[in-house]
Amino acid sequence: MDRAKLEALLNEVREGSTDVPDALERLRVLPFEDLGFAKLDHHRPLRTGMPEVIFASGKTIEHVTAIFVRMAQAGGNVLATRVSPECAESVLAAESHAVYHQTARCVTLDQTPAPQGKGTVAVVCAGTSDLPIAEEAAVTARLMGNHVELIADVGVAGIHRLLAQRNSLQTARVLIVCAGMEGALPTVVGGLVNAPVIAVPTSIGYGASLGGIAALLGMLNTCSPNVCVVNIDNGFGAACIASLINHQ
Amino acid sequence: MDRAKLEALLNEVREGSTDVPDALERLRVLPFEDLGFAKLDHHRPLRTGMPEVIFASGKTIEHVTAIFVRMAQAGGNVLATRVSPECAESVLAAESHAVYHQTARCVTLDQTPAPQGKGTVAVVCAGTSDLPIAEEAAVTARLMGNHVELIADVGVAGIHRLLAQRNSLQTARVLIVCAGMEGALPTVVGGLVNAPVIAVPTSIGYGASLGGIAALLGMLNTCSPNVCVVNIDNGFGAACIASLINHQ
Amino acid sequence: MDRAKLEALLNEVREGSTDVPDALERLRVLPFEDLGFAKLDHHRPLRTGMPEVIFASGKTIEHVTAIFVRMAQAGGNVLATRVSPECAESVLAAESHAVYHQTARCVTLDQTPAPQGKGTVAVVCAGTSDLPIAEEAAVTARLMGNHVELIADVGVAGIHRLLAQRNSLQTARVLIVCAGMEGALPTVVGGLVNAPVIAVPTSIGYGASLGGIAALLGMLNTCSPNVCVVNIDNGFGAACIASLINHQ
Amino acid sequence: MDRAKLEALLNEVREGSTDVPDALERLRVLPFEDLGFAKLDHHRPLRTGMPEVIFASGKTIEHVTAIFVRMAQAGGNVLATRVSPECAESVLAAESHAVYHQTARCVTLDQTPAPQGKGTVAVVCAGTSDLPIAEEAAVTARLMGNHVELIADVGVAGIHRLLAQRNSLQTARVLIVCAGMEGALPTVVGGLVNAPVIAVPTSIGYGASLGGIAALLGMLNTCSPNVCVVNIDNGFGAACIASLINHQ
Amino acid sequence: MDRAKLEALLNEVREGSTDVPDALERLRVLPFEDLGFAKLDHHRPLRTGMPEVIFASGKTIEHVTAIFVRMAQAGGNVLATRVSPECAESVLAAESHAVYHQTARCVTLDQTPAPQGKGTVAVVCAGTSDLPIAEEAAVTARLMGNHVELIADVGVAGIHRLLAQRNSLQTARVLIVCAGMEGALPTVVGGLVNAPVIAVPTSIGYGASLGGIAALLGMLNTCSPNVCVVNIDNGFGAACIASLINHQ
Amino acid sequence: MDRAKLEALLNEVREGSTDVPDALERLRVLPFEDLGFAKLDHHRPLRTGMPEVIFASGKTIEHVTAIFVRMAQAGGNVLATRVSPECAESVLAAESHAVYHQTARCVTLDQTPAPQGKGTVAVVCAGTSDLPIAEEAAVTARLMGNHVELIADVGVAGIHRLLAQRNSLQTARVLIVCAGMEGALPTVVGGLVNAPVIAVPTSIGYGASLGGIAALLGMLNTCSPNVCVVNIDNGFGAACIASLINHQ
Amino acid sequence: MDRAKLEALLNEVREGSTDVPDALERLRVLPFEDLGFAKLDHHRPLRTGMPEVIFASGKTIEHVTAIFVRMAQAGGNVLATRVSPECAESVLAAESHAVYHQTARCVTLDQTPAPQGKGTVAVVCAGTSDLPIAEEAAVTARLMGNHVELIADVGVAGIHRLLAQRNSLQTARVLIVCAGMEGALPTVVGGLVNAPVIAVPTSIGYGASLGGIAALLGMLNTCSPNVCVVNIDNGFGAACIASLINHQ
Amino acid sequence: MDRAKLEALLNEVREGSTDVPDALERLRVLPFEDLGFAKLDHHRPLRTGMPEVIFASGKTIEHVTAIFVRMAQAGGNVLATRVSPECAESVLAAESHAVYHQTARCVTLDQTPAPQGKGTVAVVCAGTSDLPIAEEAAVTARLMGNHVELIADVGVAGIHRLLAQRNSLQTARVLIVCAGMEGALPTVVGGLVNAPVIAVPTSIGYGASLGGIAALLGMLNTCSPNVCVVNIDNGFGAACIASLINHQ
Repeated sequence: MDRAKLEALLNEVREGSTDVPDALERLRVLPFEDLGFAKLDHHRPLRTGMPEVIFASGKTIEHVTAIFVRMAQAGGNVLATRVSPECAESVLAAESHAVYHQTARCVTLDQTPAPQGKGTVAVVCAGTSDLPIAEEAAVTARLMGNHVELIADVGVAGIHRLLAQRNSLQTARVLIVCAGMEGALPTVVGGLVNAPVIAVPTSIGYGASLGGIAALLGMLNTCSPNVCVVNIDNGFGAACIASLINHQ
Repeated sequence: MDRAKLEALLNEVREGSTDVPDALERLRVLPFEDLGFAKLDHHRPLRTGMPEVIFASGKTIEHVTAIFVRMAQAGGNVLATRVSPECAESVLAAESHAVYHQTARCVTLDQTPAPQGKGTVAVVCAGTSDLPIAEEAAVTARLMGNHVELIADVGVAGIHRLLAQRNSLQTARVLIVCAGMEGALPTVVGGLVNAPVIAVPTSIGYGASLGGIAALLGMLNTCSPNVCVVNIDNGFGAACIASLINHQ
Repeated sequence: MDRAKLEALLNEVREGSTDVPDALERLRVLPFEDLGFAKLDHHRPLRTGMPEVIFASGKTIEHVTAIFVRMAQAGGNVLATRVSPECAESVLAAESHAVYHQTARCVTLDQTPAPQGKGTVAVVCAGTSDLPIAEEAAVTARLMGNHVELIADVGVAGIHRLLAQRNSLQTARVLIVCAGMEGALPTVVGGLVNAPVIAVPTSIGYGASLGGIAALLGMLNTCSPNVCVVNIDNGFGAACIASLINHQ
Repeated sequence: MDRAKLEALLNEVREGSTDVPDALERLRVLPFEDLGFAKLDHHRPLRTGMPEVIFASGKTIEHVTAIFVRMAQAGGNVLATRVSPECAESVLAAESHAVYHQTARCVTLDQTPAPQGKGTVAVVCAGTSDLPIAEEAAVTARLMGNHVELIADVGVAGIHRLLAQRNSLQTARVLIVCAGMEGALPTVVGGLVNAPVIAVPTSIGYGASLGGIAALLGMLNTCSPNVCVVNIDNGFGAACIASLINHQ
Repeated sequence: MDRAKLEALLNEVREGSTDVPDALERLRVLPFEDLGFAKLDHHRPLRTGMPEVIFASGKTIEHVTAIFVRMAQAGGNVLATRVSPECAESVLAAESHAVYHQTARCVTLDQTPAPQGKGTVAVVCAGTSDLPIAEEAAVTARLMGNHVELIADVGVAGIHRLLAQRNSLQTARVLIVCAGMEGALPTVVGGLVNAPVIAVPTSIGYGASLGGIAALLGMLNTCSPNVCVVNIDNGFGAACIASLINHQ
Repeated sequence: MDRAKLEALLNEVREGSTDVPDALERLRVLPFEDLGFAKLDHHRPLRTGMPEVIFASGKTIEHVTAIFVRMAQAGGNVLATRVSPECAESVLAAESHAVYHQTARCVTLDQTPAPQGKGTVAVVCAGTSDLPIAEEAAVTARLMGNHVELIADVGVAGIHRLLAQRNSLQTARVLIVCAGMEGALPTVVGGLVNAPVIAVPTSIGYGASLGGIAALLGMLNTCSPNVCVVNIDNGFGAACIASLINHQ
Repeated sequence: MDRAKLEALLNEVREGSTDVPDALERLRVLPFEDLGFAKLDHHRPLRTGMPEVIFASGKTIEHVTAIFVRMAQAGGNVLATRVSPECAESVLAAESHAVYHQTARCVTLDQTPAPQGKGTVAVVCAGTSDLPIAEEAAVTARLMGNHVELIADVGVAGIHRLLAQRNSLQTARVLIVCAGMEGALPTVVGGLVNAPVIAVPTSIGYGASLGGIAALLGMLNTCSPNVCVVNIDNGFGAACIASLINHQ
Repeated sequence: MDRAKLEALLNEVREGSTDVPDALERLRVLPFEDLGFAKLDHHRPLRTGMPEVIFASGKTIEHVTAIFVRMAQAGGNVLATRVSPECAESVLAAESHAVYHQTARCVTLDQTPAPQGKGTVAVVCAGTSDLPIAEEAAVTARLMGNHVELIADVGVAGIHRLLAQRNSLQTARVLIVCAGMEGALPTVVGGLVNAPVIAVPTSIGYGASLGGIAALLGMLNTCSPNVCVVNIDNGFGAACIASLINHQ
């Protein structure tokens, strides 16, 4: 039963051709989503600056390109993550305003200015190996309307390099901290700042890193109470949460 | 070298009794925390409303009581978590203004009004088994100066009960969602709201729940991009992050 | 907005005090569960013979007794699982018509005849160690209105004992097969029958049984395509599904 | 010893050429399966509409093609699962009436009408990534003589889309619910319906999804008592059980 | 249908009161174990010297005592494993000829001389902590009619002590090697002998021993090709296999 | 100090040029392996029929070929396992008497008749997928001088096929049972025979089979006390143990 | 063959009653350990200051006391670890010079001055919960003749407290770093010093700490190349290695 | 604020243009690393002989080559690990003095003589499969200024080969022991020597070796108290620690 049918029913009640108990019964069983709730969902991305997103991993180049184009036509911003160079080439050929961020493995199309967040989102990582995940977070957060500061090469085995960035860390409104191997960086950063830290374990490492499980467990067991965690390599998700916090 | 010594050194420089190269050398090797950084740490709890905390599990009753009293004398708020009834009795005998929250297994002493957060922190859980963790989060968040709304008995196997709370969920500024067993509740809640969701897996369950690991994995693999996760049964940590977000 | 309010709204429409667009808007945003859907939920147990259930493990004796009594007053059947002898004594003192099934560790109150299922539910297990779980399944299925045949002591290491029960197995409409250790019994039974087999891994075993995980994995990897699996020691859940199938 | 030999033995007894003790001894040691039990097995597929099945993964194209052709000649229905496009091409070249279902990665040959089940089998999945497994279940169930309704794109992070399908869900006689990542969909569906739900965890996901283990654990820990589980990506097995239930 | 009934049936055939087709049909459906196969099972323990066995862990003292007495009355040997001192006291009170082996935690009743094996079964372990499992194996093997040589205190961290036992090791017909912690002993022993080695991982250890899983994995990955493995702490099972080999 | 030096030392003692205390001291510190123990090792393969073995997996074709040729020149039997068809081609080109066993993925060179074992080694497996491992065991056992009977296609989901092989199973002196997926076959076979059963878990399966871990755990938790276990896919090792037992 | 027999043999050679070839043959097969190698082992503890050690966990009080007394009589130093207060009381009653270290749960008897190490062994831990393990390491190292400096309360979440100890850390010759939860401390310390760091994961934590596995994995994945790891809670082992390094 | 700025500030204080409170404030907030601490870090490699290191795995050939050249220009020694032959070819083309160690998969450039360690570093491994990791350790240790003795082919299944190397083992100042499969070698070596043993689990093995986890667990559970462990396949890390110990 869509809005038209609901309107008709109410008119029948008004005109007396359907009495109240019958109307009650028909209303009781109608599925709520036909009342228009779903539309709110469609409006939400535009209101909040959250782009349409394609997780490209495991999809064919043709498939990714086609979805990207269709989403672009809807007028909002579009983000594709985990995009190989070959796939990016195809998307950019079809959508000339799109941009490929090679390290982040992301393609973005920025055609609707997102509302700007209130502070800075700091994206922190230890070394060059974690950069793809950190850049994925940074690209995502920027497209969602956040000022982003990327702080790399600050691993805990050389703590003075991290401490040298103390000012940048302490002025951020929310921090995303990516780390593989032992995953200790978010805990140390969490102890230096008074803001929420979103920890992203990365799959960087070998042997007992178990594909990022070691870093994940380390972050979940953090002794800094301002740290929470997302899935391994999930730079995108960390940026979503950070952006939400930064726009409140 | 504390502030007094540093002041003395600078005075010596000013007066010429120590020359600049000597002063440089002495400054180069002095540990930075003696410059006063550590004091910031001591001031931080009072500024932010974050209480002094005791994790009582594994400590003797005498130990918990003694620490609680010492912290209370510092004048700030005090929180003890995982407190057995016997231990609580001892603490309350020593500190008559302290309060025991039985379901939450927490003792609080609220002697310094914490700055009030901007919105509501919703604490959501499925059933009565998850209540101790949810209450730990609620008690902690309230002591940190947040208005808390506790929404229980809204498990995903009876989705209409959750949907009935849609208004409460959607008006919260940040949500803490506790769930054991399959841990699906944060994902469903995350799809209903436009705010950050802190997911707390609980150790409730048996067999393949693996002491909360099943719920933890479920939450990390959420398909709602506004969900982040803390350790199993870590209601306290979830409240810390939620409070930080709610005070920004 | 409950039914009374909805009726009032419709009356306003009928009387013209509220016009159709306004009514449409108010209906659009009202939560669907206030339309009475939740009541269906309350009726469902009575219609289907599914009892109210208490998982007693981890609850105090007082708590279990109180819930049991309250549920009993609602007039339907009541089932409490994982009940210790001490707890059962308390429940039976409060509810004299209740029955304690010692091996199954269940208390039942049967005050509403459940609709009878169409065939037999066979509950099969290997040895005496698996009996508590098998009996939990049998007691649950009987309370839900099923004829149950319990077949014990038919482990796969003495296959002739199982084959001697072939007739009973092959005439069952649905089978529940409980097994610990290597968990091979459901697969062998599945190969002998042409009916759905609900496999219940039990936590019986030691060392590499990993608390039932070995049996669980064995059952999930079954090469009999008519076998599905529930959680370790979940005799209750197996009976629920079996009863549903047996009542169709 | 087959039936002919057994008949001969009994005739010898009748005629006195073998005395009873000798006959007893010879009967005591004869393997029971020679008494004809095995034949029942061969008749079963034709009676029940269960096709002959080839699990193509890990077999060479030549091997799959040869088995398929040999099975086809037996006159029953044939199903090959996990078939690559190249392999399907080879099978269809050899067996012109066979059909390739690309998303499901299945080849079917439908030459014997299977008895029709009594109701509808609903196959539900969250997103496009789970479609191959859902389609495998749907293709299998259809070949076994079931009316199948496929309901896709109803993930729990957008619960209104699932609720919009409530009617379809509630009229199904048995449901197959496929989900990767957090695996919450079967629990939510299980709470909406009064029929058995066969949950199929899929290997869709990354990081902490552990190749489908997270979804599997989530489903085993479901709080909906009408949910049972099969192996990861086992759409075929789920369809077998669903078909058995639907034909009772 | 037991032997008597089968004899009666054959007599009916002989006498013509039952014709061959009827007899055929009745024979076709009778369960094979009624033909006397099951009796073989009862005879087997006496023939092979394998005792009746009770796994006492998890059973009540009364239960163990009652089973032990009933088995004793059958006239064969009886073995109870994992018996606490309290339980042993009860069994010995009821069965005065039974013997308690304290370190092995076994009670034996030896009333039927078992056929003697051909060689020696060596039972080897590293330290005093593994002795209970090693003794369980030794007691079991002796009751089954094997000459047993127990070699303790020969851990791989002091390899000269093991080498000093080279003669005993090399003259054994089969070896049982128990080890916890890193589980390396069976591999080293396997390299010194030319006989089968049954490796028994024990749950001795802490931390990363994971309750014996570390030792189990070590033994499964042995580079000595004459080593096979049983479950953690399964001294009884190791003795059964060793005895079978020693009696061939 | 080799044999020559030792002989010289003894001659010095005899001639009096070295006194006994000096000789004692020099003997005390000389490494025992120089006394010739290592040579025993070289003789052992020839005495026992155990071939020289190459584990080809992970080695280059050139490497495998070169080792094979060198071993062949030593005059004993040679076995290479896990050999790809390309590698086998290279080996056979270099060693024309060698034989490639395609399903078993083994190359053998049989130039020294091994002493014949006393009975039959039965190699049992469920389906065609487990055949490579079963054949590896069979080829190895044959080269070591055993009569081997291979029994395939006897999975536990069709128990009558296994029972039809009861005679072959019960006359074997030792059995090797290979199974993937749920790994139940060794337990069922173990219950049918009175001989040692070497269980070989295979990596056949998907999802929750975890690369053979499910089968491995199932076998370790067997309730048949005559079953022991080797590493996943280790057909070679199983044959070594079986051959040792069969030659005693 | 012990030293006496060897001497006799050499005398026979000298006297000509045994010729050289016979002597050669008898020497070739004699087990090397009878040549006196084992005695070196007995001397080693006295030479190196390594005490005799008792792992008291799982032993009875009587057993621990008896072993302690026997070891004490040998004249060297004695160490018992994991000693409960009740057990310590018994040991001290029997051996009045022994000392109980309550936090470390160790009893020591220091009756032979151990050779002093060359530098300081720093034992570092984060909080009070890790103290028992840190103290076990400190007590062990001191008994082995090392100057020990214990540095507690320097968790990575408050990095300034650790940096304040930089001088102590940097002057140590070897460091033992104990940490539970996320186990990040050894990595951070490793980055601050130029000496070997022995990391000891502790079982402190809950939920996803998995009894110390999270800390263990974190330490194994350290990005500081001067960190190596011992078993969970193995303070004793860490001290042994540290002492070896400090005495070189 | 670097040293120059600090000097300027002190001069301002001396001259009175900045008063003490202002200077205090500016000093309080300046990052400590600007005081010169970071420089120590840059000097450290040259002082200690620790080379600059590139972990080539996962980097492009161009990337590795560029980094190598840049590091070479700094004048110190350079080490690249996990280098494929193709990558090595590129590096050597750009840096003609570099050397490729094929088995070790390392490229070294030795242009600064490292200070020589005091004793020998023994690198021990079982078979040819572990050689790449053992060689990585050996190459690394040599570049860091250590005399290295490589001892291969001494697996524990042939213990006499290991004992034949007793002298070499016992004269080493520190030992690196690499082993895959069951990982028992470090424990046996640890029992033979009185020096620190760095155990390196390798990923060699199949099935239950779990990619090296079995060896890792075995080593962590060692009963030799002089063994510590690094990550799976981490030959480089083991050499760093060994070199540190050898240079003390």
